[in-house]
Order: sequence, then structure tokens, then C-alpha cells
Amino acid sequence: MSVSFVPIPEGSDFPLENLPYAVFSKKSKPDKHRLCVAIGDYVLDLKEVAQYYAPEHQAALQSHNLNLLMSLGHEAWDAVRTRTQELLTKGSVVDVNDLRTVCLIPQSEILLHLPAEIGDYTDFYSSIHHATNVGIMFRGADNALMPNWRHLPVGYHGRASSVVVSGTPIRRPLGQTLPEGAEKPVFGACRLLDFELEMAFFIGGPGNQLGEPIKVDDAWKNVFGFSLMNDWSARDIQKWEYVPLGPFTAKNLGTTISPWVVTTAALKPFLLDNFPQEPEVLPYLRQTLPFNFDINLEVSLKPADDNETLISKSNFKHLYWTPLQQIAHHTITGCNLRPGDLMASGTISGETPDSYGSLLELCWRGTKTVELQNGKTRKFLQDYDEVIIRGHCEKNGLRIGFGTCAGQVLPAHPVD
Amino acid sequence: MSVSFVPIPEGSDFPLENLPYAVFSKKSKPDKHRLCVAIGDYVLDLKEVAQYYAPEHQAALQSHNLNLLMSLGHEAWDAVRTRTQELLTKGSVVDVNDLRTVCLIPQSEILLHLPAEIGDYTDFYSSIHHATNVGIMFRGADNALMPNWRHLPVGYHGRASSVVVSGTPIRRPLGQTLPEGAEKPVFGACRLLDFELEMAFFIGGPGNQLGEPIKVDDAWKNVFGFSLMNDWSARDIQKWEYVPLGPFTAKNLGTTISPWVVTTAALKPFLLDNFPQEPEVLPYLRQTLPFNFDINLEVSLKPADDNETLISKSNFKHLYWTPLQQIAHHTITGCNLRPGDLMASGTISGETPDSYGSLLELCWRGTKTVELQNGKTRKFLQDYDEVIIRGHCEKNGLRIGFGTCAGQVLPAHPVD
Ligand SMILES: [Ca+2]
Ligand SMILES: [Ca+2]
Ligand SMILES: [Mg+2]
Ligand SMILES: [Mg+2]
Ligand code: NI
Repeated sequence: MSVSFVPIPEGSDFPLENLPYAVFSKKSKPDKHRLCVAIGDYVLDLKEVAQYYAPEHQAALQSHNLNLLMSLGHEAWDAVRTRTQELLTKGSVVDVNDLRTVCLIPQSEILLHLPAEIGDYTDFYSSIHHATNVGIMFRGADNALMPNWRHLPVGYHGRASSVVVSGTPIRRPLGQTLPEGAEKPVFGACRLLDFELEMAFFIGGPGNQLGEPIKVDDAWKNVFGFSLMNDWSARDIQKWEYVPLGPFTAKNLGTTISPWVVTTAALKPFLLDNFPQEPEVLPYLRQTLPFNFDINLEVSLKPADDNETLISKSNFKHLYWTPLQQIAHHTITGCNLRPGDLMASGTISGETPDSYGSLLELCWRGTKTVELQNGKTRKFLQDYDEVIIRGHCEKNGLRIGFGTCAGQVLPAHPVD
Repeated sequence: MSVSFVPIPEGSDFPLENLPYAVFSKKSKPDKHRLCVAIGDYVLDLKEVAQYYAPEHQAALQSHNLNLLMSLGHEAWDAVRTRTQELLTKGSVVDVNDLRTVCLIPQSEILLHLPAEIGDYTDFYSSIHHATNVGIMFRGADNALMPNWRHLPVGYHGRASSVVVSGTPIRRPLGQTLPEGAEKPVFGACRLLDFELEMAFFIGGPGNQLGEPIKVDDAWKNVFGFSLMNDWSARDIQKWEYVPLGPFTAKNLGTTISPWVVTTAALKPFLLDNFPQEPEVLPYLRQTLPFNFDINLEVSLKPADDNETLISKSNFKHLYWTPLQQIAHHTITGCNLRPGDLMASGTISGETPDSYGSLLELCWRGTKTVELQNGKTRKFLQDYDEVIIRGHCEKNGLRIGFGTCAGQVLPAHPVD
């Protein structure tokens, strides 16, 4: 790998090997959305340098979101990535012609937006440790995993309109809950607000036609890249509403993603074997390619006017079902995917209690507390708490980071 | 009401009092999508006459889908409707200047498309007869309605990408099912493919901001208009997959809507009292305005190479929860709605067995058959069956029709 003319600080999430995409605007022109990649503490403004790419890729790079680039497919993604690495290398046309001042912008001077227009958002439930924990808490250890769980990647359709970018505050929701032992529900602010540590990937490629499933070993062509996700969850509202059609308003109050989309190409050095599956899955889910990744994930909680505390350390590799199996299953009935669609992993919990991806599990349904700095504790989120998710891969001196996915809880609106 | 210069055939769905919107293209120019309203056997091309509307409405009328018009809000909708009625009345500028040949197109010469770009699609479960029937079949008469059912409009997020316009064929899906008594699922074509008779409404107005609920008595401002819907359902796939997060691939194989959007204004003469609710709902769902409608609904089944048989007659008025309560509940947690979002009623079953809105209910879980013409019977849908939903209001000689919502079942792809 060559060396960039942009300085890469020690421990940066964004070396020349990463180049995650985002949609940004300058703070001075907040409505002008453009594409960029991150490099060190800067971004490269892709509209400014679009002329140095192949003609058939320029329109996508000049767009105001990533949907068009996502739609072009993996060969275009590879070509664009290679060209971007060249442009950021010492001695490139950008370096030699001293175009730095026009196309490199300090990250401190920009705003970051949703990377794509998300047509549909699907949330899976693919961590076996998370599904087992939830099962033990609500149904006991003997029936922890539902009978279908090892046969298909359980998932549900989520709400696309309320997917927001890191930094967007989340209002504590109002809703109905059924108090313990009560006959009738009550109305008020959610009392069991939680986060869910997840990762999500964006669908790329032209998409499939309605009625035409995507084969599991072809599905890698449809994975553009990954972001961090916090699937905010109102546990008390969910418990009352979810029978028989699943979570609804408990999940549509907001879902936060990190602004950076780390491409599958950048994650290649961190490829792992898939999670072992037992019993063997049906043929349409049998995947021969490895598509699991060693991505360290961390959750920190920051109360108002206090420091943050690291409360969970997990890893993408704990997922039982792969993104390719998720795509194959999602489309087996013929459902059409479109570029820009978002697919989330479900809460990523590891095996040990310090790796659980939600307060529900960390505090084991409110029977324990999470200890924060300065003697504070939590069972669920309090007003003004900020939840900060971070992720990175690291190996042989190479660090591929995801930046942060953060959101602060605002107090509920008063009940009239 | 004045008289149109366009002839309105006896029994037409589309008199001057209706004027439902659609997106069309001429068969000779299939890719040029434009807005229209139906009038008799013709459509009025709204792009051609946009110049005769207020300047602030012209861009919406020149658009390629209804999203912009939907976003303008109810005052704009009323102004545009009034102006369209004027333009179609005898002696109008269109009539006098003989613009008929440029702006009126026979419906036989056009293709109809999805009326809007649907950002999110939500399916409710709001017919008490349907929910009770399903409950009796699967849980017995004593627990037919879930405890939450009378307290909130149960719903779930659906798949927007696979909502298609009437006439689009639907491929019988492949998927996993668990045979009676089996330990392990099998893979193959869905054997219990069903329709669901529903109606859906499009969200209008600018939409609410994330975190800001819409009050139930304000929600009428967000109802642009209504279409017919068939929510195709793979019963055997659903039964195996839906625990605990709800229906997923059993519902994302395709959802058909009628091309015409009948505005709330056109339905005003058919307003009814809301369905009586017992026990009283929580204050955020207490609606003072009537927002129930007398809309006759019919389902016909047409086998390949045979005539159609009317198999169900239902009515929108059987819905327990109103669209306004659905909106208030959907947004109570702060979920943001956007113009063009689609909200479906859930299967609309009446009280009597001839008014049930699905084959599941009409054949009572396969214990009975539906009789078709020529001695044929059905328990679930067979390949090449076409399901045709129609709807209309009728009173004092005024007929407001919805056109048709039709789709034919294609055979499943062979399993490799
Ligand atoms: Ca989740
Ligand atoms: Ca339905
Ligand atoms: Mg969410
Ligand atoms: Mg459907
Ligand atoms: Ni290829």
C-alpha cells in the first residue's frame, strides 16, 4: 500500500486502506449535500475530484447521496476505490497540482448526513447469544431459542423514515404499557428505554426484480458496505404491543446509524470463517463463501454533564447468520431489494456478560445495574443520557474504523 | 353539481364528483409518467392543463408522481379539486377552446402505474371480525382477541419495495414451512397462498417531525386519499416464521394496490359514525370526528380460462379502528410520517361468512371450500388464479368507484 499525502494521525479510523463514504455539507453551506470519503482528519470532496474518475462513474460521485454509486455494482465500486486511493497517494494529480485546498476539508468544518435515501429498512435478530438471553429472560432456559431460530434468520420490516444519522437527539417516546398485574394499559412516557448495539449494511447493485430470489453465494454483490447502528427500543411499549404481529411503535421512534459506510473491500483483511451452524441449514441458505468479520464493537454511556463509561465490548463475529444468508432469506419469496436499502444485524451480544448489546441483557431485565463513573448506575436509559457506539478492526498495524454512532435521549413531551 | 362535457356512462366509477388521481403513461410512450384524474372512460392529463391552475399548484400537477401534490396539504387539495371540476364542466376553458383532443385520453390508451413513491408502508389489523376469526381458528373462541387488541390499533411495518400496481403478476413464493407434526422445516413452494381484502390510504401534508406525534383530531389533514389493496399472504410460511417478531417473508412477496387514489373529499357524502369502541380507548386515541365510510367491497376469483366468481362482499365500515386513530397511534412514539407513505387497514371482514376478506376465513382454515363457477372449488389460491378486488360507494344516484385491484398468481420457480 502506498502512502497518502494526507497525514494519518496515530490510531486514526481512516487510513488510506479504509476510505469510508459519507454524505456531508460544509457548515457554511449546510444544505449542499455532497459525497466524500474520510482520510485521516479530513474528507475528500468527491464532487470536486469527480473529473479524475472514469466517465461512467462521475455522475454517481457528483450525486447528493450514495444511492447511485450503490446501484453501480461491485466492479464500479472496486474501480472507484482504486482510483480514490491513487488520488490520495503522494505524487498524484491532486498532490502535484496542489488541489488540497479545494478538495480536502477538515472534518471539523463539515456536517454529516444520512448516507443514502433508505427505501426499506429490515432488522434481523441474528446473534444467538442475544436471542438466547432474551429467550431465557422471557420464556426460561428450556425454551430459550424459538424452534425456527436455527433454521432461518428471523427478521422483521422496520421503519425507514425514522432512521437518523449519528448526533440526532432521540425523544423519549410516549405510549401504552401494561403495568405488572394490571388489567388495563396506561399511557405515559416510556420507562424502559434501551439501546441495541447493531451493525447494518447497505444494499448495492441494481437490485433484484420482484419474484426473483438472490442466491446466497451471489449475495456478496449486493453488499455495498457497513455502518454502526443503535436500534433504540422501548421495552415496556414493545411488551404490550408486539403480540401477534411483532414490534411496531416500540421500534419506530428512531434508529441511529453512523454516517460512515465502510465498504466490504476495506473489511476484506478482517474476514473470518462463518459462525458454525447446527443443524445444517436448508440448501438455499448454505453458504460456501466466508462472510464474517472481526469487528470490535463498543458501547459507552454518557450521562448529562458527566464522562462516558464503557459498558459493553462485543464483536460482529458473534453473529450466527451472515449478511449473505440474510439477503438470500429476505428474497426467497421474491421480495425485491433496491440500492440504498438497509439491513441490520439485530443486537450483537457476545457470550460473556460484559459483551451484551443492550441494557435489557446487561442488567438482566432490571435485576442488576450497570455501574457508571462517579457512582452512578443504570438499569435503563435516563433523560439526557448519550449512547455512543464505536467500532473498528485491527490487525498487523492496520486499523479500519467506523467512527461513532451517537444519540442523546431527550425527555418525553408532557402528557396533556 | 354541474355537468361535465365528458360523457359519463351509466354506472361509471368516475363521475365529476369523484376525480380520483393516478399516474399514467400513454401506451405509445410508456416511460413518460404523468398525473391524471379519471373522468368517465377518459383521463384528464393534468400536465397538459396545469397552466389553468394556481401558480403554486402547477409544479405538483406537472410531476411524475403524486408525492408533491400529497405534500401540499388539504387546502391545496381542495383548491385543485375545485379547479379540476370547473375545467371539466360544460363551458369551461377546456370545453370552449376545444382542448379535449390534447388533454383527454381514453383509458383504453393508457398504462397505469404506482401513484406515489411509497417511503414506508404499514399494515394494520383493524377489522374486529377478521381478528376474531383468526383468533378463534388459532387460539379458540375464549382467547380470540389478544388483550391489547381493543386498546390499540395493532399494526406492523410492511415492505414498501414490493407494493405493486394492479395488473402486476405475483409469483407464488418459495420458502420454509413446518409440516404438521414434523420436527424440521421443509423448503418448497407456498401451498397456502391467500389474498387479503384491504383498503389503504396515502399520507399527505408536509408530515410530522421525528419526535412530534400527530393528534387524533388533527390527523384528517394527513389523509390524502384511498386505494384498494390485496395483501398477498403465504399462510404456511407465516405460521413458521412469525414468532416472535411478526410476519416477514410471508408478506413481502408482493402487495397489490389499485392505481386510483380516491380523495377524502370525494368520500365525504359516504361518511358514517365510527365503529363503537368498548372499552373506551385512552385519551390519545379518543376521536371526536367521524371518519368512517360506507364503501362496498367485493372480491372475485377468476381461474385461468374461466369466468370470475364473486366470493366475498364486505365493507370498509366494518373497521373498528379509524385511519385517524391509526395515524395517532403510529406517531405517538414520535415516528415521522412522510407524504406518500401508505397505511393499510388490515383484512376487512364483516360479520357474516360471505363477507370475510380472506380464503383463510372463507374456507375456515381449509375445513370448507369456496364454490366457483363450472364446479370448481378453492381452499387457497391455485396457479393462474386472478384475484380481483372492486370497491364503490353508492347513494342517491351518486356512485364513487375505486376501479379494480387485480393480480394473477404465477407458478413458483422450480426448486433446484
Ligand atoms: Ca433490533
Ligand atoms: Ca394484512
Ligand atoms: Mg429502531
Ligand atoms: Mg403484502
Ligand atoms: Ni460481476
